[in-house]
Amino acid sequence: MKTYIGIDLGGTNVRVARVDETGKVLAQVKGPSYGQEGPAKVMANLEEMVREIPDWNEAEGIGVGVPGPVDTKAGSMVLSTNLPGFAGYPFASEMQKQFGMPAFLDNDANVAGLAEALVGAGKGYSTVFYLTMSTGIGGALIVNGRTVSGKHGFGGEVANIIIDRDREKVNYLNAGAVENECSGTAITRKGRAVFGSDAIPHAGAVFDLAASGNEKAQEIVKTMEEDMGQFFATVGCVCDPDIYVLGGGMMKSADKFLPGIIENYKKFSHEALRDTPFVISKLDEPGIIGAAMLPKSAGL
Amino acid sequence: MKTYIGIDLGGTNVRVARVDETGKVLAQVKGPSYGQEGPAKVMANLEEMVREIPDWNEAEGIGVGVPGPVDTKAGSMVLSTNLPGFAGYPFASEMQKQFGMPAFLDNDANVAGLAEALVGAGKGYSTVFYLTMSTGIGGALIVNGRTVSGKHGFGGEVANIIIDRDREKVNYLNAGAVENECSGTAITRKGRAVFGSDAIPHAGAVFDLAASGNEKAQEIVKTMEEDMGQFFATVGCVCDPDIYVLGGGMMKSADKFLPGIIENYKKFSHEALRDTPFVISKLDEPGIIGAAMLPKSAGL
Repeated sequence: MKTYIGIDLGGTNVRVARVDETGKVLAQVKGPSYGQEGPAKVMANLEEMVREIPDWNEAEGIGVGVPGPVDTKAGSMVLSTNLPGFAGYPFASEMQKQFGMPAFLDNDANVAGLAEALVGAGKGYSTVFYLTMSTGIGGALIVNGRTVSGKHGFGGEVANIIIDRDREKVNYLNAGAVENECSGTAITRKGRAVFGSDAIPHAGAVFDLAASGNEKAQEIVKTMEEDMGQFFATVGCVCDPDIYVLGGGMMKSADKFLPGIIENYKKFSHEALRDTPFVISKLDEPGIIGAAMLPKSAGL
Repeated sequence: MKTYIGIDLGGTNVRVARVDETGKVLAQVKGPSYGQEGPAKVMANLEEMVREIPDWNEAEGIGVGVPGPVDTKAGSMVLSTNLPGFAGYPFASEMQKQFGMPAFLDNDANVAGLAEALVGAGKGYSTVFYLTMSTGIGGALIVNGRTVSGKHGFGGEVANIIIDRDREKVNYLNAGAVENECSGTAITRKGRAVFGSDAIPHAGAVFDLAASGNEKAQEIVKTMEEDMGQFFATVGCVCDPDIYVLGGGMMKSADKFLPGIIENYKKFSHEALRDTPFVISKLDEPGIIGAAMLPKSAGL
């Protein structure tokens, strides 16, 4: 069976694994990424870690998931807030030289979505839209087993999609951007504005209050359900996915808002589109598995 | 050089052509489609028309563009308002039997977008988003030379995307749907509400009034430019196209609103995305050429 090396590189930690084509992790190494010390140190560290993996050189190729948009054709990061020095660094070609096998780069949301599309909850579907909701909101569009990264690596980077441009301007994102209206951070912010910081340690507290009958919390959740329903209806009009796969920390509270999101998605969608399934992501480690799936996705 | 048969089938008229792989029309036949008389009559008519095309049987395959969403895997229409009896009819497989060559079906906006992506203004780009603005608004997403039709054939069917769900509910589409805010019909409606029906025979009159300094017309155009800027910024977040190709009757007035749309697109987009080019479509007959490109797009 074919195997691939996957690297899930963050600003603080990194994992390296050898994964087979069904998504099974055969061996794994974890450690600090030295992500704040620049490419030379990071690459030297990766060199050592990959060579610790048994039979690493029998893999068909290497895939790396990184935090931030990637020019997948050039194999380099476009922006690298969490990995200083990596914007424009020829990551994929350096990996290829270092290990003597094809190497690929993509951002962490695309990689997680690819994992779910190829060997997770979206397996067997042609067009998969993956959304991750946690402190932020990210996503990936996977068509025929390949992520649609686009011109600047922003394909699936949906955080900045406007739900209502007349809403509050919160940060550098658009006023009314979906991330500022519906992410964990957004729900926490809205909850704290009503109930105070002490009552709302995290977004889950707002969902719990709403579930227990608090009307002000219910209002926050209702708006979020409408906003996300509108969001998915919009995505549906652009690419009409076969399935929506939802991941990220907020899915722990999914039973408290996902039915409402789906109801609103249907309300805002042409009747022909209303049967598209929404499912929760299936993989425990989509980051590392998805990174390993990059060479497979490229046909290796 | 390879050639393909393209059929542009409407509710009233139909065109059949043999087209080479560069998009050059080698021979063409036009006539009534008998679209209101049901599949048997329509198919018998197509049979005759195809056989009038010189060397039709040297083509690699047949492609058909139809008005309405298509299940491209099944090769049949999902809805067929303008072609009664065709919803669910096994169009592609019947064509294949009738002419002894592979046959493909897609909706007219996807087919026009495919033509622009393969042999028109989007030639050479991996990810092309095509938008047609006339009485309605339609579109197509083309990735690596293939349209993303999705589960129900609604990929690129962007008319129902919500710009602002608090706006007026005009028809069966969502309140604030982009088609009801920005199409030719919408601009005409908004113009007539201010200036009366006689002053506004069509949307172009609103653009002309705005260009001549009328402030109320300028307000309508300004809102439309903001709405369309938001629309393209949204599409950019989902699939980050290499290029936007714009077609349809409204492009006759493009000089009066397209610069404003692009300015707003930039305002609502991450700075990395602001250099994506917007170009006007290039082909005079994208419908018939795009239909012929369907077999090419499938690898024939």
